[in-house]
Amino acid sequence: MKAEIIAVGTELLMGQVVNTNAAAISECLADLGIDVYYHMSVGDNKQRIKEAILQAEKRSDLLILVGGLGPTEDDVTKQVLAKHLLEKLVYDPQSKKKLEDYFMQTKCEKTANNERQVLVMENAKALFNQVGLAVGAFLQKNNHYYAVLPGPPNEMIPMLTKELKPLLQEILGKSEQIHVRILRFYGIGESQLTTKLEKLIVEQTDPTLAPYAKNTEVTLRLATKSKNTSEAIKRLDKLEQSILAIEDVASYFYGYGDDNSLAKVVVSLLKEKGKMITAAESLTAGLFQSTLGEVEGVSEVYKGGVVAYSLESKAKLLGISEASLLEEGVISEFTARMMAENARDIIDADYALSFTGVAGPDSLEGNSLGTVWIGFARRGKSPIARLFHFSKTRHFVRESAVMRGLDILRRELLKN
Amino acid sequence: MKAEIIAVGTELLMGQVVNTNAAAISECLADLGIDVYYHMSVGDNKQRIKEAILQAEKRSDLLILVGGLGPTEDDVTKQVLAKHLLEKLVYDPQSKKKLEDYFMQTKCEKTANNERQVLVMENAKALFNQVGLAVGAFLQKNNHYYAVLPGPPNEMIPMLTKELKPLLQEILGKSEQIHVRILRFYGIGESQLTTKLEKLIVEQTDPTLAPYAKNTEVTLRLATKSKNTSEAIKRLDKLEQSILAIEDVASYFYGYGDDNSLAKVVVSLLKEKGKMITAAESLTAGLFQSTLGEVEGVSEVYKGGVVAYSLESKAKLLGISEASLLEEGVISEFTARMMAENARDIIDADYALSFTGVAGPDSLEGNSLGTVWIGFARRGKSPIARLFHFSKTRHFVRESAVMRGLDILRRELLKN
Repeated sequence: MKAEIIAVGTELLMGQVVNTNAAAISECLADLGIDVYYHMSVGDNKQRIKEAILQAEKRSDLLILVGGLGPTEDDVTKQVLAKHLLEKLVYDPQSKKKLEDYFMQTKCEKTANNERQVLVMENAKALFNQVGLAVGAFLQKNNHYYAVLPGPPNEMIPMLTKELKPLLQEILGKSEQIHVRILRFYGIGESQLTTKLEKLIVEQTDPTLAPYAKNTEVTLRLATKSKNTSEAIKRLDKLEQSILAIEDVASYFYGYGDDNSLAKVVVSLLKEKGKMITAAESLTAGLFQSTLGEVEGVSEVYKGGVVAYSLESKAKLLGISEASLLEEGVISEFTARMMAENARDIIDADYALSFTGVAGPDSLEGNSLGTVWIGFARRGKSPIARLFHFSKTRHFVRESAVMRGLDILRRELLKN
Repeated sequence: MKAEIIAVGTELLMGQVVNTNAAAISECLADLGIDVYYHMSVGDNKQRIKEAILQAEKRSDLLILVGGLGPTEDDVTKQVLAKHLLEKLVYDPQSKKKLEDYFMQTKCEKTANNERQVLVMENAKALFNQVGLAVGAFLQKNNHYYAVLPGPPNEMIPMLTKELKPLLQEILGKSEQIHVRILRFYGIGESQLTTKLEKLIVEQTDPTLAPYAKNTEVTLRLATKSKNTSEAIKRLDKLEQSILAIEDVASYFYGYGDDNSLAKVVVSLLKEKGKMITAAESLTAGLFQSTLGEVEGVSEVYKGGVVAYSLESKAKLLGISEASLLEEGVISEFTARMMAENARDIIDADYALSFTGVAGPDSLEGNSLGTVWIGFARRGKSPIARLFHFSKTRHFVRESAVMRGLDILRRELLKN
């Protein structure tokens, strides 16, 4: 099956909104083994939406229209598609009930416009919107499949995965499906990794092997088409083994999956080993702890920590003598070690990380933007610190420091 | 002038990469007053790239192709366009020099493939790539304008703004340009705001007025076309005044501009008033301080603070008695007030915010996901705390709490 995604919304063409929906839908379709050859974005304009539909019908089996389901007059996606398919728009009972309950609860006054959101093509299957009010639709007609999804990603994603994906799976029936495995790496650049994997990448047939750099990480996407899941898993295992067998590639590999992260992996390792972590942060100003805090159930392994941004607060909150801070400098091996060790001691944790450096724009104590000391304290051992040089922006320097800190902790936890 | 953006890259259609380029280019074109009616994405496929070009020529004056300029065999954008326009591809001397210097410095071995990157259409103006190796191009031919830009955003953006934009400006000459003003609001929903502005939105002609919801904020985009800047500014001022004159709209308005943020505004207000801020964070686990830390020069107004995630650390780091924490509960007005006041006192700051609540997934002390107490301490006044109920995900609850905290501080700073 060939699919095409038509995103509707003038805000996309003005550049005020990035079309993340096209990527999310494409990823979902790829996992179903449905090929996507075109993305298109058009404004809230009946004529151009119609033209986009007509053209997509010429070259694709499945048309997914996303956006333009809202209450206002310029939300016309459903109306254009219904007219084109000679479909009457009728109220979807479940969605209409939700709409009425919503206005009952919020005591807002319901305008006629709001009811536009719960209209669905007569012969279509309504796709329920768990988050918002606009109902989606799926319809097979004239040898084409049509899906209509809401524009806001937080409404679109659940409708895509919980409502539309199962329908498509059903249609695809027992046909071949793509089985995907994502390997996640930290600490190695995309070019380095692809160089190491060159032979495998060049010779790839099935499974396919595709590297992608995402922010501070690199992921490898292994994919194979098969009717037989266990057969697919065998193939993916085989390729994974040959990847991780290549000289020190395994040491950068930290986990599987699209919704995984270094923080999640570190938190589960800490749980597994029954260890507690804390931190003393200067340039990262809480970003390391906040990154841990994003992981559900982190409270088992993390009780709290300190943000010591200024010299005084390094003295006051961490009990480091101002004299030695002035003598050694706040951006120094000494300070990084003391910050980590004292935080570990105050919180009585097994491990502590510390971050002190220059996030810019100005240099500090003669250190240029991107100079970062990361301290690491372990119960019963003397604290260590390592010097790093991160580049680019303030944001990237802070992000990189946090990721490196997580990596240091992960490698320590794997040791014992 | 009508423009169309054609993004080339199979990774876009697989959903592994989000097409941020289309938005960035559209925004740039909007500011030049160039209309964009279509975005398209196609894979690294000669036939489909050609079809996209043919179709775009039918409906647009300016075609911007982005992506597919790399060294590998499947990077064919330039080749397809050159063939279509009967243009010879020749080496761009400046880019070729950069390529050779690069391989000299890195001592990597240069393959023939690498030289593909510095090929440019014979009659085109080469657009220099300051970041990467792939050269861009701009060409006027057969009553169309063609631009070719590299795919990686960090290469595309500088080429767009420093190389292509000036060329387009020149072509547009003294013609009308769009003058844009962004107003940023926090604390009011998009629907509430649009309801208040309904009359203005319905009656809008020039300037235009468009609301957009971004995460926890709403922005209004005021835009007018004019040859005369001061005339445009007059019109924008007039509309802004009538917007802010509407009943309590002004109280939600916090600043101007696309790259502005509530944190930036709060930091400059703190500087202006010469006040220091600190925080004691539980559920936000450092996100509030980290958000401040993202702002350049924050060290003038922020020295550090505490992350007290567990009950013990609220006692240990903030000196709140365990007995009263157990008696009042960690998610309580008492605890929020004590956290803020004690943090303010320890850091000796003028203001302190505290955050304690349930980020989920499980409820805590009988409080459900999204229950958040925000404490606020001010030097010389007794601390206060307010109860909020945020919804949706763990991430959204933490984000919303931080934004609300910034808003509380902003409103206080505006008072005196």
